[in-house]
Amino acid sequence: MSRYLTPRMQDLTPYTPGDIPRKRNVLKLNTNENPYPPPAAVLEAIRHASEDLQLYPDPCCLALRRAAAKYYGLEPDQVMAGNGSDENLFFALRAFCDEDHPLARPDVTYGCYGVWCDLMHIPQQIIPLEKDLTLDPARYHGLGVTIVIANPNAPTGLALPAAAIGEIAAANPNNVVIVDEAYVDFGAESCVPLIREHENLLVVQTFSKSRQMAGARLGFALGSPELIADLERVRNSLNPYNVNRMTQAAGIASLQCENYFRETCRQVIETREWTAAELRARGFTVTDSKANFLYVRTPKRRSRVLFRDLRQRAVLVRYFDAPRTEHWLRITVGTKEQMEVLLARLDKILKED
Amino acid sequence: MSRYLTPRMQDLTPYTPGDIPRKRNVLKLNTNENPYPPPAAVLEAIRHASEDLQLYPDPCCLALRRAAAKYYGLEPDQVMAGNGSDENLFFALRAFCDEDHPLARPDVTYGCYGVWCDLMHIPQQIIPLEKDLTLDPARYHGLGVTIVIANPNAPTGLALPAAAIGEIAAANPNNVVIVDEAYVDFGAESCVPLIREHENLLVVQTFSKSRQMAGARLGFALGSPELIADLERVRNSLNPYNVNRMTQAAGIASLQCENYFRETCRQVIETREWTAAELRARGFTVTDSKANFLYVRTPKRRSRVLFRDLRQRAVLVRYFDAPRTEHWLRITVGTKEQMEVLLARLDKILKED
Repeated sequence: MSRYLTPRMQDLTPYTPGDIPRKRNVLKLNTNENPYPPPAAVLEAIRHASEDLQLYPDPCCLALRRAAAKYYGLEPDQVMAGNGSDENLFFALRAFCDEDHPLARPDVTYGCYGVWCDLMHIPQQIIPLEKDLTLDPARYHGLGVTIVIANPNAPTGLALPAAAIGEIAAANPNNVVIVDEAYVDFGAESCVPLIREHENLLVVQTFSKSRQMAGARLGFALGSPELIADLERVRNSLNPYNVNRMTQAAGIASLQCENYFRETCRQVIETREWTAAELRARGFTVTDSKANFLYVRTPKRRSRVLFRDLRQRAVLVRYFDAPRTEHWLRITVGTKEQMEVLLARLDKILKED
Repeated sequence: MSRYLTPRMQDLTPYTPGDIPRKRNVLKLNTNENPYPPPAAVLEAIRHASEDLQLYPDPCCLALRRAAAKYYGLEPDQVMAGNGSDENLFFALRAFCDEDHPLARPDVTYGCYGVWCDLMHIPQQIIPLEKDLTLDPARYHGLGVTIVIANPNAPTGLALPAAAIGEIAAANPNNVVIVDEAYVDFGAESCVPLIREHENLLVVQTFSKSRQMAGARLGFALGSPELIADLERVRNSLNPYNVNRMTQAAGIASLQCENYFRETCRQVIETREWTAAELRARGFTVTDSKANFLYVRTPKRRSRVLFRDLRQRAVLVRYFDAPRTEHWLRITVGTKEQMEVLLARLDKILKED
């Protein structure tokens, strides 16, 4: 830290991303990446787009927004593209919150929401999940502040029905309700069809998980034309060329590969359910995850220790060292072969007791 | 605009990027892109990096920062990568300015500085350029606030010697001096060698202009390890995966193509000088630009009108409609063939008088 940093920024605690292994042969189950590569059409689109690399990307992302609008059943002015969902969520908090306009969020959820609030000095109204880690929608009715809910939630994997989120939007008509659907394609219900009914509903989706494009950085914000215009105002005031040429082209190509998308999602879901059953058979508690990760604990070993033991055996999972999460591990669902390796190493570790 | 937008954000005037032509056969000389494609090694690096698209990019950009550090003669902890220079400049203003810590900048310069100040409610100390559009460094001595100077300046193209900026840094020891070197490779002197002497000097460079990578979005911030740590704190609090996989790989490859880089810069400079001479021979006033654009005016036609006339003839240049810039046009330096087309169309337009 330098002596030039403003006092506000000195107090920040930045987000800590999952480790990136510097060695080979590490089983990386810590950042919820898709185990399958993107379809060949995406790679071809990137190659083609890179031929004009000396030219700026379209700052309006027009072709990409048109393709996404068609896919989601919306108009192009209901879609904004960002450099990953993180950027879109940051823009949304910048647009709809400030020192005088707080954000309500669950206590156990995606860690960046709190970091962005600290960065922008947005007061937080932190609403605890229930004892079983479920989210009671009634706690969000009539709050009168901007709300963000990850659905499915992270790291629990638990999902609400879309209708429950629609009711939250209806019960907060003067505030924006942001639904972070990063993991929705793995078995939860999307709120995109509810955008028509609720002008205050903003849905955020990412191409990092179900679309196999974490390396490209692409996310969409979806909502009423007025909400999207607000986000565009922030985007154009901060970084108008935020989505690079290759990623814009890759996004369009991905949206055209519907069968591959559905089939890889199906495989991840199948592997998730198989792994969950295997873990339960070994005495693990496993939440009913609708995401591409499992949230697990075992009475046989403290999660902090199991996390370390797995790392020593070249398996990276995610451990969140905070009061309500310290008893759990979050494990990304890989291929079935990868999960067999995970189970074998878990068996070895737990047999040592 | 929705009724949910916070009052602060309602007052914003976003930056307006240069037009992206939707038709073919337009001569695009309005956003200072490089007329040459990147070297083949860059495209090959992109293709290779896209093969792991399902994996997140390294949030630390370690390999890229190492390559850049080696190139600039710095240590990796003196380098931060961003999603274009715009993002790095935004992070710098977020780190070193706020409501109580103003930013000093020239009145005629890159438009985003003012937009970012509005976005973050940073008071501005606007220092006029001299009558001839030069920047008098003495006006920046002992200001006691954060300073940003584009060198060469945009849209004038005029450059200060590096030593003059070093003196500004020395004369403001308690404040950060940001030097935006977006155009430095086209004939100005870089301040990177001065980083060692001035712990408060932050140099920002982009790969959008001299490196032919506007479509990839890559910029670097270069400074003391402490200043860079401050920027990393902001970056990790906002969007830790800000630079995608393909762009990280492309940046490394570009840094290895020194001969191509030097040769294409040389060609742009040669074409700039040739075009400037041709324009002066036609009665134009042309500043002594050290950038990849020319800043020009002619007594024969109002710049606003000439801008429109050129657009009607499928030539896009940049016109800034503000008190001190309304008499000028900014014209990107393309290939010699492109500049011949420009001159031919100008001759046609001006002959019509």
